[in-house]
Amino acid sequence: MKLLEERILKDGVIKPGQIVKIDNFLNHQVDPALCKEIALEMVRLFQDKEINKVLTIEASGISMATLVALELGCPMVFAKKAMSNNISEDVFHTTVFSYTKAEDKNVIVSKEFLGPEDKVLIVDDFLAMGNALKGLIDLCNQAGAQVVGAAIAVEKAFQPGGKELRDKGYTIHSLARIASIEDDTISFVE
Amino acid sequence: MKLLEERILKDGVIKPGQIVKIDNFLNHQVDPALCKEIALEMVRLFQDKEINKVLTIEASGISMATLVALELGCPMVFAKKAMSNNISEDVFHTTVFSYTKAEDKNVIVSKEFLGPEDKVLIVDDFLAMGNALKGLIDLCNQAGAQVVGAAIAVEKAFQPGGKELRDKGYTIHSLARIASIEDDTISFVE
Repeated sequence: MKLLEERILKDGVIKPGQIVKIDNFLNHQVDPALCKEIALEMVRLFQDKEINKVLTIEASGISMATLVALELGCPMVFAKKAMSNNISEDVFHTTVFSYTKAEDKNVIVSKEFLGPEDKVLIVDDFLAMGNALKGLIDLCNQAGAQVVGAAIAVEKAFQPGGKELRDKGYTIHSLARIASIEDDTISFVE
Repeated sequence: MKLLEERILKDGVIKPGQIVKIDNFLNHQVDPALCKEIALEMVRLFQDKEINKVLTIEASGISMATLVALELGCPMVFAKKAMSNNISEDVFHTTVFSYTKAEDKNVIVSKEFLGPEDKVLIVDDFLAMGNALKGLIDLCNQAGAQVVGAAIAVEKAFQPGGKELRDKGYTIHSLARIASIEDDTISFVE
């Protein structure tokens, strides 16, 4: 998606360790007009699919996931980060390794809001190692829900998460696929 | 707002301690169509004001805040919960007492995204003791930003946060104001 690639080049901030921060339009400050364009493109990419639930993880995915669900006319559920003492019988529970915080995070979804009747589109802002996405897929599997696919804003295509999950048969569409981050240059997959 | 009151009566779950859970349409599972109606009403209530930024706190406020900001055509910023080792010179920092978790939470906003040029509408899902709202106001004050007002989905009007902040001169509009929660009956302020 040209619009998103251009915005990353314009406003993304490159940090050591091949990190690109998109804090000023997606991850902390949010440009809602860009989010809406991203959401419309995500819906277009999955337009031939039957989807009755959008799933994301707090917090950065919520803006886009809300707009995707609004467009699809279905509910959106956001998985919550939880303290281990907050994990009950009433929730599906998984762990997601966070590289930023170098620890496993507990992630939950209430059993009320995910079940075998659900055809789920997963929406998230970033895909790199794929840990968050694997966690969300795990929650869907526990619930017996069908994962229709995943719509991602920015994929670091030089990291293995996307390939690994596509090889397993998941449909993953990323709107901006970063091929490399070198010094101060970001290149996208053609 | 009749639509929201009716939805609370239909789908809200009353828990001991005068708690009403609205997890299945606003706080965990989100009904985006309802969120949009809420956002449009929030914008209507502040239509005569000059607003150039919407501020909320992760995670439950983000859906509504995104839709409000989309309608207003301005950026949305969500304050982040942070570990104490994540608080740097680059952020405004406050603490918010969480009754659910019975502890002070660190909340931050990057100094890049809040400043003296900002006329801020604060958006949040709940107002009870007012701790989150006071924290967000504190962040605005530190930044020298002007707080235009706060738009809240659900206020527990029998708790003191709303009155306290209105007495200090803040404009606060709540779309559903709960007067009391007794046994299984929720009553709204007329």
